[in-house]
Amino acid sequence: MNEHIVKSFEDELNTLAAECARMGGLTEAQVADAITAVVKKNAKLAADVVGRDDRLDVLEAEIERKAIRLIALRQPMANDLRRTVAAMKIASNLERCGDLAKNIAKRSLVIKDAGPMTALTRPLDRMGKLVLGRLKEVLDAYTSLDLERARAVWTRDDEVDEHYNSLFRELLTYMMGDPRTIEPCAHLLFVAKNLERIGDHATNIAEIVHYEITGEEMLSARPKTDALGLEEAP
Amino acid sequence: MNEHIVKSFEDELNTLAAECARMGGLTEAQVADAITAVVKKNAKLAADVVGRDDRLDVLEAEIERKAIRLIALRQPMANDLRRTVAAMKIASNLERCGDLAKNIAKRSLVIKDAGPMTALTRPLDRMGKLVLGRLKEVLDAYTSLDLERARAVWTRDDEVDEHYNSLFRELLTYMMGDPRTIEPCAHLLFVAKNLERIGDHATNIAEIVHYEITGEEMLSARPKTDALGLEEAP
Repeated sequence: MNEHIVKSFEDELNTLAAECARMGGLTEAQVADAITAVVKKNAKLAADVVGRDDRLDVLEAEIERKAIRLIALRQPMANDLRRTVAAMKIASNLERCGDLAKNIAKRSLVIKDAGPMTALTRPLDRMGKLVLGRLKEVLDAYTSLDLERARAVWTRDDEVDEHYNSLFRELLTYMMGDPRTIEPCAHLLFVAKNLERIGDHATNIAEIVHYEITGEEMLSARPKTDALGLEEAP
Repeated sequence: MNEHIVKSFEDELNTLAAECARMGGLTEAQVADAITAVVKKNAKLAADVVGRDDRLDVLEAEIERKAIRLIALRQPMANDLRRTVAAMKIASNLERCGDLAKNIAKRSLVIKDAGPMTALTRPLDRMGKLVLGRLKEVLDAYTSLDLERARAVWTRDDEVDEHYNSLFRELLTYMMGDPRTIEPCAHLLFVAKNLERIGDHATNIAEIVHYEITGEEMLSARPKTDALGLEEAP
């Protein structure tokens, strides 16, 4: 009887982690499509991203409800409690990544009729790929409980900031050179900021995975290089 | 004995709510000071806001830890579980408001040497006061468990969006009129967006308070009027 309960709790915990991983996969797809939508000015894809975001909201709410139920009914201790809380927190970070992807997609729709800004396409695409790569990497670390991989994502946090700072500069230069680009570039400033924030969520998830595995917080300050001293980047 | 346990649980729950309310007061002060720092170009105040943000991070972590401990050890049901989860979620929203206030303060430092942009001071100040008023109102609703007040904050969500959209337009006009203002105005675009996001967190808190009191989600869509269709505003 007791063994049955223990096994079933393991099952519940594994199901929770699997749902969180699945939500991770859907979030990755949303971020990837949002980047393609803005880089390729693909309005159909942008509309798809906007339409699919509800799904992530529902998944997050479900994972949260299940995690709290698990804590209340099973009173998990130590490692099990950390796994449960990690799933809940990762789902919250993923839901916010989904919102950011949706916002990027919406902005791509707002600026789709602006003239071509080809000089900006490449750095935007590069930053997008970098951020997406970090999200993939940290979700791999989560599903495989791979501490080294989580730590690697965490320590390379500053790469995204460097891309963001350089893109911020390029956008301002563009705006100064041609006032007609001011409005679309203002939206691209927010797109770049949203990508940076998705990168920050990847860093948050790396910290959560680290805590889940070791039970210890990552105490040292994040390795950041932001010329503006705006490292919190909200 | 049983009554003693019940009373002590009530006490723990009340303490948790009080800590959350206290964190609310500190967040209000951070947001108010950040707005003053950017409107009055007060560098000392900006530095204070930046320096004090850690406090909110620590409080959030404490509230979360206590809430999870309470759920695991006491297995609260129904109303008590909602109160516990509400404290945890409100603390998370407040921590994010604190990050946004810190970011506003940092941006005020970056642009403090830019020429005077007096035409923008007033709309920025107005939007700041509106957002701060919403945050105060929803924290009052939380501490007094006042459903009508929470609902009022929730239904007036669109006022902030109107201010944001109008400020966004004014900033673009400014940038188009004088290229030298492009950089400081780009930072003010983010300040305006951050204020809008603090307003969104006030709306989130209103939804949490509503759920805490009634046990029901606010199901209808938020009343939004965003010309850009960017109502998620992340």
